[in-house]
Amino acid sequence: MAQALRPLLVLLAIGSCIAADHIDLWPMPKSVTHGAQRLYVSKDATMSMVGSTYSDEKAILKDAFQRMLDLMKLNHNADDTNRSSFVLTGVNMVVHSPEDELSFGVDESYNLTVPTIGDPLHAQVEAQTVYGALHALQTFGQLCYFDFTSRLIELNSAPWMITDAPRFPYRGLLIDTSRHYLPLTTIKGVIDAMTYSKLNVLHWHIIDEQSFPIEIPSYPKLWNGSYSYSERYTMSDAVDIVRYAEKRGVNVLAEIDVPGHALSWGVGYPSLWPSDSCKEALDVSNNFTFEVIDGILSDFSKVFKFKFVHLGGDEVNTSCWTKTPHIKEWLNNNHMNASDAYRYFVLRSQKIAIAHGYDVINWEETFNDFGEKLDRKTIVHNWLGGKVAPKVVAAGLRCIVSNQDKWYLDHLDATWEGFYMNEPLKGIDNPEQQRLVIGGEVCMWGEQIDASDIEQTIWPRAAAAAERLWTPIEKLAEDPRSATSRLSRFRCLLNQRGVAAAPLAGDGRTAPYEPGPCVRQ
Amino acid sequence: MAQALRPLLVLLAIGSCIAADHIDLWPMPKSVTHGAQRLYVSKDATMSMVGSTYSDEKAILKDAFQRMLDLMKLNHNADDTNRSSFVLTGVNMVVHSPEDELSFGVDESYNLTVPTIGDPLHAQVEAQTVYGALHALQTFGQLCYFDFTSRLIELNSAPWMITDAPRFPYRGLLIDTSRHYLPLTTIKGVIDAMTYSKLNVLHWHIIDEQSFPIEIPSYPKLWNGSYSYSERYTMSDAVDIVRYAEKRGVNVLAEIDVPGHALSWGVGYPSLWPSDSCKEALDVSNNFTFEVIDGILSDFSKVFKFKFVHLGGDEVNTSCWTKTPHIKEWLNNNHMNASDAYRYFVLRSQKIAIAHGYDVINWEETFNDFGEKLDRKTIVHNWLGGKVAPKVVAAGLRCIVSNQDKWYLDHLDATWEGFYMNEPLKGIDNPEQQRLVIGGEVCMWGEQIDASDIEQTIWPRAAAAAERLWTPIEKLAEDPRSATSRLSRFRCLLNQRGVAAAPLAGDGRTAPYEPGPCVRQ
Repeated sequence: MAQALRPLLVLLAIGSCIAADHIDLWPMPKSVTHGAQRLYVSKDATMSMVGSTYSDEKAILKDAFQRMLDLMKLNHNADDTNRSSFVLTGVNMVVHSPEDELSFGVDESYNLTVPTIGDPLHAQVEAQTVYGALHALQTFGQLCYFDFTSRLIELNSAPWMITDAPRFPYRGLLIDTSRHYLPLTTIKGVIDAMTYSKLNVLHWHIIDEQSFPIEIPSYPKLWNGSYSYSERYTMSDAVDIVRYAEKRGVNVLAEIDVPGHALSWGVGYPSLWPSDSCKEALDVSNNFTFEVIDGILSDFSKVFKFKFVHLGGDEVNTSCWTKTPHIKEWLNNNHMNASDAYRYFVLRSQKIAIAHGYDVINWEETFNDFGEKLDRKTIVHNWLGGKVAPKVVAAGLRCIVSNQDKWYLDHLDATWEGFYMNEPLKGIDNPEQQRLVIGGEVCMWGEQIDASDIEQTIWPRAAAAAERLWTPIEKLAEDPRSATSRLSRFRCLLNQRGVAAAPLAGDGRTAPYEPGPCVRQ
Repeated sequence: MAQALRPLLVLLAIGSCIAADHIDLWPMPKSVTHGAQRLYVSKDATMSMVGSTYSDEKAILKDAFQRMLDLMKLNHNADDTNRSSFVLTGVNMVVHSPEDELSFGVDESYNLTVPTIGDPLHAQVEAQTVYGALHALQTFGQLCYFDFTSRLIELNSAPWMITDAPRFPYRGLLIDTSRHYLPLTTIKGVIDAMTYSKLNVLHWHIIDEQSFPIEIPSYPKLWNGSYSYSERYTMSDAVDIVRYAEKRGVNVLAEIDVPGHALSWGVGYPSLWPSDSCKEALDVSNNFTFEVIDGILSDFSKVFKFKFVHLGGDEVNTSCWTKTPHIKEWLNNNHMNASDAYRYFVLRSQKIAIAHGYDVINWEETFNDFGEKLDRKTIVHNWLGGKVAPKVVAAGLRCIVSNQDKWYLDHLDATWEGFYMNEPLKGIDNPEQQRLVIGGEVCMWGEQIDASDIEQTIWPRAAAAAERLWTPIEKLAEDPRSATSRLSRFRCLLNQRGVAAAPLAGDGRTAPYEPGPCVRQ
């Protein structure tokens, strides 16, 4: 194409996108109508709360509004808005519930109206709870952009009327701080980026075989299993993360994976290992093991306020139980084989967690092996593959979907299209059973992930799943090709916000292949 | 090794590092002595300026001090320092010069003293200029760390007496915003990271063949060559970058590469191309070409206040000149062949820049082809390989070293050891000639670089070069293996500060190979 025409075509493309009802929002809201009027957003835009019952004592909305303004101004200096008409002076937030406690299933719905008449002209948000209002601010922020002709922040295609609510209440991302330590600033960056695509659960897989990085006041030698003296989180750090997330509408799900994936526990307390030469899984015959679990969960209950705790239970190799004499003896005395002992371990751990006020999430092997024995409020976390969720909900249990063939972010060959098209309700037609699938989660396992490459491995593929989990199924793209340019622009928006989201093309975390515009990478 | 011993060994290793005079600073200062006393840094540490002639009107020091405190507290919440002794209450800055203008060759030296006696106990910085004081704050910041036992910010091995000054005055990093657009927030992140290893020149290769992203008020259609309507920098954005950098002691070197690497100029002004079918290099026969260069440099002179401007001049393919009839005719009329015309173009462009108050930097082909004709104040920017710098300085010209076999960051197979060991004065023994090598620069060409992968491609390899350029040659590691653990810890410090520096092992920008502590990646 002649070089001279290129920018003209880009401009035409942008123009026609708006005209042809291509809404440039991610994730796509439940219902959107818009017009064709250009508005200008005042640099001094303010937030009001006229009509709110909610009082914003903790400045949740105020701070979120400021963050939104800061993002709007991050990359370009806008001029003052010296215009007489069509100037948006602010956003009025009407939040009906006075409560500000973030909890599972909280009402996250909102209406966002951006009118073209009004004096002063302002956008209007209406939500049941402050957490719906936070989502409204995210959507509003995506409508605003710096315009290079006017040198002002603009909001195009008004009036907008958006009604929105998530399809699933659990929209998660797992991070793994055991395979590699992640500094707090890295975790906070992940949380901020989650809010941009309305993900709402940070599943913190804190501990595993390789390292035990977190402080447990009840058993202070546990974090001797950290990689080093400085690769640790204090309880104060954990409180900081939970608060940071809560202010942004993100729940933190803490996981202690038992009895497997727990080798690091024994660095501080070697009696937790079956023996010095056979160190996994945690010694089921030792009451001390369950005292430690109780101590951990007791300490967790002071910090992690989400209704759920994750107790793991996956990939349990019981050979050290049957090989180690004192455990073998215990098994005999209790008339258990290794499988019985695995079941016993999981169920006993569940009871401890329940005694601390938690409902339990377990990885799917616990369901596959002894589903009918699990506590009835157990949520089964599917990961091995498709076809498990239907069985879980048929058994009357709730399910979180994370099938590894599509939703494991460490699988670099899992494409964004695969993330987008992975349907949690696949094979589940009964509406009552469908409701038992509370949502899904993409998993950023940490074997080759640290602060240097976590962002581009998570994004934009996690955003593709975020739309699958938020947007009503009838508004999802039936063919991911029709979502490509919109996700591409969202990826570029992430970059503009300082999130190192990778190009869409190719495998996860690839470098851009060649020079070119951001949206074509 | 038995698991239980592992953390003990790590602690021993840390202890022995300090005891054996391993200084954990990057880059290594000119002169360092220390003791063995542990100090505690007050959470409310303050900055004073008793004895300063400098008044900090622009809050350069004040803001830098606050940034340092913020970094100190970024990842862990420290307790209040309820101790009666050995508490560092602040830093006193003695800056002798009242001037705050950042210029090439400004005195960047400093002394930093952290005593163990004093009431109140405070660190002392003494520097000729505020820019030396900024470097002192960087060094001070590297001495402080969060301790997991005391839960306080600590500063170990006091008293410290550090005398420091850079070996070379020009310590640069090139970024390329033509092959891929880089959002302002990305560029600012690069600038901040530069200050951590005391790099002081950001060479902004703004424009090239693929895109023209910057506003040129004198010729407003030039940025029609941007990739898209939004992948642009206004003049206001450029001012923002220069101010941001200046406050941090970083000079911004702007480059317009002529006559090659300039295809994008013709999108807005097609007459700059030799023809519609032969578009590089810029039309040497057209006076308009030089009017545009003059306009660009005129606009630059209002924004880019560094003494130097870079006019490129590399990789010039003149075939479109000899093939295009009107240029062929012009060559004949002026009794020039293509080489003569290349020389003519470069020299005429130099004169324009000089008329706007700049001294000129040109890539080395201009020297290789017609070095004796270059303006005598030209700085030759070596990039093709080793062995050029000696010729440049023998001819009496100044030189910047960026030999591509060692210091090109886009060459992923260029190891950090290679970056570290690349000696700018190689083959130059005459002290007068050595002084003509003003420094060196690592180059982050952008063909496969955008906001998603720029940080881990730059760091830590650029930091390796930063020590080569800062530290006196006698204090550099003779074998890079003796710098490995120190650079590794610096890389982990970068990660803790939110800089996505890659592991040391393997090629540039590799992911961590397997689970493990940060310092072993």
